[in-house]
Amino acid sequence: MTDRILDYLRRNPSDAPRLVVDLDVVERNYHAFAHALPDTRVFYAVKANPAPEILGLLARLGSNFDCASVVEIEQALAAGATADRISFGNTIKKERDIARAYELGVRLFAVDCEAEVEKVARAAPGSRVFCRILCDGAGAEWPLSKKFGCVPAMASIVLEHAHDLGLVAYGISFHVGSQQGNVEAWDNALATAAGLFRELAERGINLAMVNMGGGFPAKYLRAMPGVPAYGEAIFRSLSRHFGNRMPETIIEPGRGMVGEAGMIEAEVVLVSKKSADDEVRWVYLDIGKFHGLAETMDEAIRYPIRTLRDGEATAPCVIAGPTCDSVDVLYEKTPYELPVSLAIGDKVLIEACGAYTTTYSSVGFNGFPPLASVVI
Amino acid sequence: MTDRILDYLRRNPSDAPRLVVDLDVVERNYHAFAHALPDTRVFYAVKANPAPEILGLLARLGSNFDCASVVEIEQALAAGATADRISFGNTIKKERDIARAYELGVRLFAVDCEAEVEKVARAAPGSRVFCRILCDGAGAEWPLSKKFGCVPAMASIVLEHAHDLGLVAYGISFHVGSQQGNVEAWDNALATAAGLFRELAERGINLAMVNMGGGFPAKYLRAMPGVPAYGEAIFRSLSRHFGNRMPETIIEPGRGMVGEAGMIEAEVVLVSKKSADDEVRWVYLDIGKFHGLAETMDEAIRYPIRTLRDGEATAPCVIAGPTCDSVDVLYEKTPYELPVSLAIGDKVLIEACGAYTTTYSSVGFNGFPPLASVVI
Repeated sequence: MTDRILDYLRRNPSDAPRLVVDLDVVERNYHAFAHALPDTRVFYAVKANPAPEILGLLARLGSNFDCASVVEIEQALAAGATADRISFGNTIKKERDIARAYELGVRLFAVDCEAEVEKVARAAPGSRVFCRILCDGAGAEWPLSKKFGCVPAMASIVLEHAHDLGLVAYGISFHVGSQQGNVEAWDNALATAAGLFRELAERGINLAMVNMGGGFPAKYLRAMPGVPAYGEAIFRSLSRHFGNRMPETIIEPGRGMVGEAGMIEAEVVLVSKKSADDEVRWVYLDIGKFHGLAETMDEAIRYPIRTLRDGEATAPCVIAGPTCDSVDVLYEKTPYELPVSLAIGDKVLIEACGAYTTTYSSVGFNGFPPLASVVI
Repeated sequence: MTDRILDYLRRNPSDAPRLVVDLDVVERNYHAFAHALPDTRVFYAVKANPAPEILGLLARLGSNFDCASVVEIEQALAAGATADRISFGNTIKKERDIARAYELGVRLFAVDCEAEVEKVARAAPGSRVFCRILCDGAGAEWPLSKKFGCVPAMASIVLEHAHDLGLVAYGISFHVGSQQGNVEAWDNALATAAGLFRELAERGINLAMVNMGGGFPAKYLRAMPGVPAYGEAIFRSLSRHFGNRMPETIIEPGRGMVGEAGMIEAEVVLVSKKSADDEVRWVYLDIGKFHGLAETMDEAIRYPIRTLRDGEATAPCVIAGPTCDSVDVLYEKTPYELPVSLAIGDKVLIEACGAYTTTYSSVGFNGFPPLASVVI
């Protein structure tokens, strides 16, 4: 929550839920990452929030861009990034999309298997590829599955195959898991990466880069370490495992860059009980899982919620969205404490919604429009 | 899968995933419902698929429309329905949306608490309201939560309150749970509804209508009873509990009306393993949870998938979508049997995708466009 956002909301009342993003917070976060790891290039994960104003600011500040699709590459280019500052970071790409990225000048691609290497060799000859390795993600609130990456033994085969097909076997990537609260979570993967550097060097393939991915948290309800703590721990691990042969490094913050920069203003549509002796109220908002708050799935992300009645007595409630879908419930397993006096028509402020909200919104489930967004 | 859809796909090749809906199937389903329960009015649940061609067909066939929002009401009107054929069936409504529906001529509203009754009394004076009661949903593949409805004891208070405020206390509604496989699931709720009819009649309030909701299944992989079996079981229950004082009745099929009418054509983007000794392949499609297949959440809906290599030897695989999101996995807990020879670039046909796909699609997560849709 920032004064600029509160001021904007006051001067621009609205009937519909909306996200407001404060660019000053994004700028502060960019500098925090750049300062915490001064020798590491920042590749903003565009998928977290591709608003043109955010991409434009980050392009001006010197950020690079991690893109998941051709559309995201086009968005980064339109915002002023040059193609050499773009990574096509999705390990799952159609060959015609690789070709399109290559046409646009992109020369850095993620892979995690030989078939993907072959697509890149055909559609983007001579490009740099980095191979993603599986990582256990211990400590992350939202651990990643095995969907991306391969075991290290396979990574060396994949990179050797790339080398044989005329690509530049450029490096290793991994992801320690979203909303990672453990600053030491990078250590194991960096040890593995260093081992792969040595192993491939013995076969005459000199890797240059380690892409340390994202996972940097936003602060929701639980306290999280600050960016400097991550920078220090990662730098220690890099020194430990690479010694005086430090590789080029990349990080891909998304949530950590924009999560705390945005706030959603929503409205209480209904407060009710299901029976006379119910102890827990149901509070229904005009936004739910299908219009921006998808990350409440399994109650994974617990957003801080402010009301105009904060400070008054609270009681637990279930919080749900406005659609006719029974899974459109935000918090039920662990009810949420909200003021007893909260009433129909009250505005509520949902904090730290800058990441993974606008583009997650459905196109029109139940006829409700997608989440509106303003960047200030 | 219909010949018309296959023929359309052959004549109109596409690079992107798309849903094709066959209106002939929708028409056949409408007649099946109308025939199975000849004295029951069909209110199509617009949220299942609001494509204008589907709404137009159903309006011409004489269907009524269950709408979740003002936008859905406007869509039904635009398709040719008159306002007296529209129910505003969402129990969670902003008062200004009730007023807007009233302006548009809608006079039938769902409620499940006194606060909602008061909104309707102010914004849509004199209208008919029906109160939704909680229902245990035993037998449904996707049981509903307590999000909608109240206990029967509260329903009588809610309806009496409506009566006192000058509204028409019109009836009772319930929902037995989506994809309900038990044709007897309506019986308990109908017994409860009949009890409420008697109880309120003693207080001089004569309810007229029972809204028996949706829950009628589409056939995915598991066999399901046909519409006639539901009609017979429901008619028996109505006779048992209401005797010769049969109420007006409504059903609200959504999935049962359009689910089997649509098929998604998708493409295999990648087939890979995570290690040399992996027994299960990963098959990545160009569509996933965020672009139409949201109902694979928790692997709830298991869609039939056809390939051009059906009949060849199969092996289990994990099926995942194309985004950089680790939760974008369709089937992993229970791997899916697909032909061993399935290859990158192959088209696959995902059946029974006519309901809850297009509008569920995200506006642009990872930069991928929303699911395209064609109605033939």
